[in-house]
Amino acid sequence: MTTPTSAPFEYDSNPALSATGLKGFTLPLSPSGKTALFPPPPWDYSAEMLVVDFTADRDTLARYLPAGLVPTAEGSASFGFGRWNAGAEADPRMKADPARGQHDEAYLLIHAMMGDKKVGFLAFSWVSTELSQIRGLVQGFPKKLGSAFISRPVEVGTGGPRREPGHTFHAHVNSMNRRLATASVTLDTAEEAGYVPPPASIPHLYLRMFPSLAQAEASVLELSTLSLRDMEVGSTYSGDATLEFGESEYEELHELGPITAGRGYHYWYAMTILSGSVTPLSA
Amino acid sequence: MTTPTSAPFEYDSNPALSATGLKGFTLPLSPSGKTALFPPPPWDYSAEMLVVDFTADRDTLARYLPAGLVPTAEGSASFGFGRWNAGAEADPRMKADPARGQHDEAYLLIHAMMGDKKVGFLAFSWVSTELSQIRGLVQGFPKKLGSAFISRPVEVGTGGPRREPGHTFHAHVNSMNRRLATASVTLDTAEEAGYVPPPASIPHLYLRMFPSLAQAEASVLELSTLSLRDMEVGSTYSGDATLEFGESEYEELHELGPITAGRGYHYWYAMTILSGSVTPLSA
Amino acid sequence: MTTPTSAPFEYDSNPALSATGLKGFTLPLSPSGKTALFPPPPWDYSAEMLVVDFTADRDTLARYLPAGLVPTAEGSASFGFGRWNAGAEADPRMKADPARGQHDEAYLLIHAMMGDKKVGFLAFSWVSTELSQIRGLVQGFPKKLGSAFISRPVEVGTGGPRREPGHTFHAHVNSMNRRLATASVTLDTAEEAGYVPPPASIPHLYLRMFPSLAQAEASVLELSTLSLRDMEVGSTYSGDATLEFGESEYEELHELGPITAGRGYHYWYAMTILSGSVTPLSA
Amino acid sequence: MTTPTSAPFEYDSNPALSATGLKGFTLPLSPSGKTALFPPPPWDYSAEMLVVDFTADRDTLARYLPAGLVPTAEGSASFGFGRWNAGAEADPRMKADPARGQHDEAYLLIHAMMGDKKVGFLAFSWVSTELSQIRGLVQGFPKKLGSAFISRPVEVGTGGPRREPGHTFHAHVNSMNRRLATASVTLDTAEEAGYVPPPASIPHLYLRMFPSLAQAEASVLELSTLSLRDMEVGSTYSGDATLEFGESEYEELHELGPITAGRGYHYWYAMTILSGSVTPLSA
Repeated sequence: MTTPTSAPFEYDSNPALSATGLKGFTLPLSPSGKTALFPPPPWDYSAEMLVVDFTADRDTLARYLPAGLVPTAEGSASFGFGRWNAGAEADPRMKADPARGQHDEAYLLIHAMMGDKKVGFLAFSWVSTELSQIRGLVQGFPKKLGSAFISRPVEVGTGGPRREPGHTFHAHVNSMNRRLATASVTLDTAEEAGYVPPPASIPHLYLRMFPSLAQAEASVLELSTLSLRDMEVGSTYSGDATLEFGESEYEELHELGPITAGRGYHYWYAMTILSGSVTPLSA
Repeated sequence: MTTPTSAPFEYDSNPALSATGLKGFTLPLSPSGKTALFPPPPWDYSAEMLVVDFTADRDTLARYLPAGLVPTAEGSASFGFGRWNAGAEADPRMKADPARGQHDEAYLLIHAMMGDKKVGFLAFSWVSTELSQIRGLVQGFPKKLGSAFISRPVEVGTGGPRREPGHTFHAHVNSMNRRLATASVTLDTAEEAGYVPPPASIPHLYLRMFPSLAQAEASVLELSTLSLRDMEVGSTYSGDATLEFGESEYEELHELGPITAGRGYHYWYAMTILSGSVTPLSA
Repeated sequence: MTTPTSAPFEYDSNPALSATGLKGFTLPLSPSGKTALFPPPPWDYSAEMLVVDFTADRDTLARYLPAGLVPTAEGSASFGFGRWNAGAEADPRMKADPARGQHDEAYLLIHAMMGDKKVGFLAFSWVSTELSQIRGLVQGFPKKLGSAFISRPVEVGTGGPRREPGHTFHAHVNSMNRRLATASVTLDTAEEAGYVPPPASIPHLYLRMFPSLAQAEASVLELSTLSLRDMEVGSTYSGDATLEFGESEYEELHELGPITAGRGYHYWYAMTILSGSVTPLSA
Repeated sequence: MTTPTSAPFEYDSNPALSATGLKGFTLPLSPSGKTALFPPPPWDYSAEMLVVDFTADRDTLARYLPAGLVPTAEGSASFGFGRWNAGAEADPRMKADPARGQHDEAYLLIHAMMGDKKVGFLAFSWVSTELSQIRGLVQGFPKKLGSAFISRPVEVGTGGPRREPGHTFHAHVNSMNRRLATASVTLDTAEEAGYVPPPASIPHLYLRMFPSLAQAEASVLELSTLSLRDMEVGSTYSGDATLEFGESEYEELHELGPITAGRGYHYWYAMTILSGSVTPLSA
């Protein structure tokens, strides 16, 4: 699921695109291509993550998984927050402009069995920028716009928590004027170098979809996975966690019913996304 | 280009979607389908528009049109602002929640000849909500997030302009921390009932695109038009206008070079979008 | 309480300000004065209002009124939403830039008796711009930043409600990631010309306050009223209403307890604020 | 200028406030006091700073200083960006809710001589939250709302810069839809422990102002300084910098004329604000 490829992504050799006389990996196309919403991969990411593992009712979780996936025996899932920093070889503006290269995120990853393989299915995600949202939709990330607020570790003083046992990190995410989730992790353990927290240790699976207005069938509907390079987990702290889901007429987190928060993890994470591979869904 | 259809849009009869066990016209899918970014058409719209017609260098405009379209003899285009209100038969939340059903927009429509037929090609658009943006991308609208601010007509007092000759409406649009366009229209004429302002009188043409991460070729790349119902123009005022484009590292409005603002129009506009039809692009 | 004055507001004759060598009606001061948060009055306003009258427990309401005011016999109050447009003689940028001159608002006005005079005490207000917020604090309006979303009346089509009996207007206000209030008014009556809806018919009273960091006593703490000119009510529709308050750790709307929504009003309103007069509070 | 005091700030012993029967360090007052915009000091801060020292024309800088201050011989100033985390003893919600306790900032500090003492005069500041803005106005910080975007240092991967020589940090600030300043610092030196970067080494001076609507004279106009405790500078990196000011009809940064960027500093900074002391200004 993470077979690396090394060739650059040659989207602009596309004859149909060339036939338009316009350029761009996405709309809006223009003579230079610089108006596109985001550049082609490879995309480089470095993130500070705050993730809470939890369990819920298995039958309920099952309803949120696509056919072919079943919940784990324990009904496990992760609710995570990330402060992401991203660049792209093809677009130096992403690193030169923090408003373009940075975004904050919250997401629900349901742990699932695909046959005897454990995977994570990204059920919901909320991000703070259109670049992240639409780049995500292209990958199969079910992203909406939302506002995630996450404690920032501090080096001096008492204005925020330190990355040390005894300190508490808080986070919440909001979308369409509703509080969707509120979490906290009180660090108690500095993990050893090389430690990989459970939520970072399973491959992810996505549903990619682009609707049609001309027919009932979606133009694109397929299972999607990503080819990654240079995945790395940095320093990690863990601790006991709290997690609470709120109600929204636009969401289904609260519908997961009673949940039990497990351990929480604060860790650095990096990777480069090279490309995606897809399997069409059919009846 | 506007042949009405009357059947409701039966997206959920899609067998591949059914095979997932999940519902929704768009991501995120869920058991109820209520988490989708927006519902299927028909979509109802009512908008208060402020549109400025202008001319630019024909050779420059030609560079922003897809192959097959050429600028008009006079090099004409429209830069418009709209305060949109929208509903959908399939989603009563759009009218019940103004945060969902309303958005503000600015756009560039290049007037063009497709053979001997005059059309408008939507080159760029900026909108204030994700619902409008992604619903637009599905239709082929090259939408980004942006903030449009537009004078609101007032009924009493002097806090804003009235819809009367002698009053000036101002508007500007901003995206990614750059001022993209600033416009004004000083009303001098109340148009007769039944008048259709020039920018509302030509059919529109779009490029629909959804990139692939698995291949150079985009998953979707096609010319798109819409089937409309109940198009209506309401009361209209016109007047002399000003229009100025600003620089942005993410846009190409300023690259249009010197422009000459013509007449401006303040009018009400309504329509219902039923479906789209598409023509694949190929080399 | 609304004695008009006609002299322009000569703030810049202030010797202490002149002694700084800098200009401005507010911080930030600068050589030109153009950096100030807002200009001095007179301030012109035109607004489209959606206001719901309601009643609550009198003893509870009493707790939200300053000493000297008591709730009305019926325990009445208004929760209103406004789409405001504002200008200022001293600052043409307010009308030329809709981002500066417009704001949206929601507020709680508790009806009260001051002796045998009926007044409205502005208990809470949320607005969409810093200009409105801080200009409000200077007047004694207890304003916070918030997002108010209000149905916009449409002239054609079905994208939004019309200002006609049978149509429903919706509104909600949010602050600090919490939904604070949700309201609707279903119009059933077009009021006669000259009609003044109850919530627009009583004078308002404010508490003006500016804390000190150098002493326990606030630098400014006084009762405040405003001198107005050219107050005008435009066309008005009324109807039955709904109103619901939500919970927030930063607010006390929900603490008002059970409420009974009465009539709602959709009307145009205008006025010019000339100056304020104040009465110091003392023990 | 930084004499510490140790008594808690007893604002609520204020008899005039008690006379209202309402509570709060600021508006909005309420029975519980929990609706106030922010709590009384002490206020704890921890910040990650990116500051660029620069020089400008002395005569021009002099125009931005209040009477009694003159520019330094070299015409020096600092333009800084900060990612602030704040708490308050009296309000645990600030640390429990990152949306309340965190803000981002950009500011202009003009270095000046007050007699033979070198001080920093805070000429302009833009912040991302109302809490920071209005708490700042109470201290004499000339704060507006604005959006500052600042590179975040990363621990792993290549999504952002590391705090290591050779890496570049970028930042920009925007307000009222205009880009006000764009800066970068390319780190070349890890400073020794105990190093205090020049922009953190001088005491600051502020103008505190609250206008009146009842008279020409402002209700509050005074020179202000703060009493601090536990000031600490953490790890610091420095490097060559770039700095560019943009135009805005609401600002006067561009009016500073040609500037020469000097060194830039990326450092951690902490302090606790205890109280303020003020000197009235008079003609």
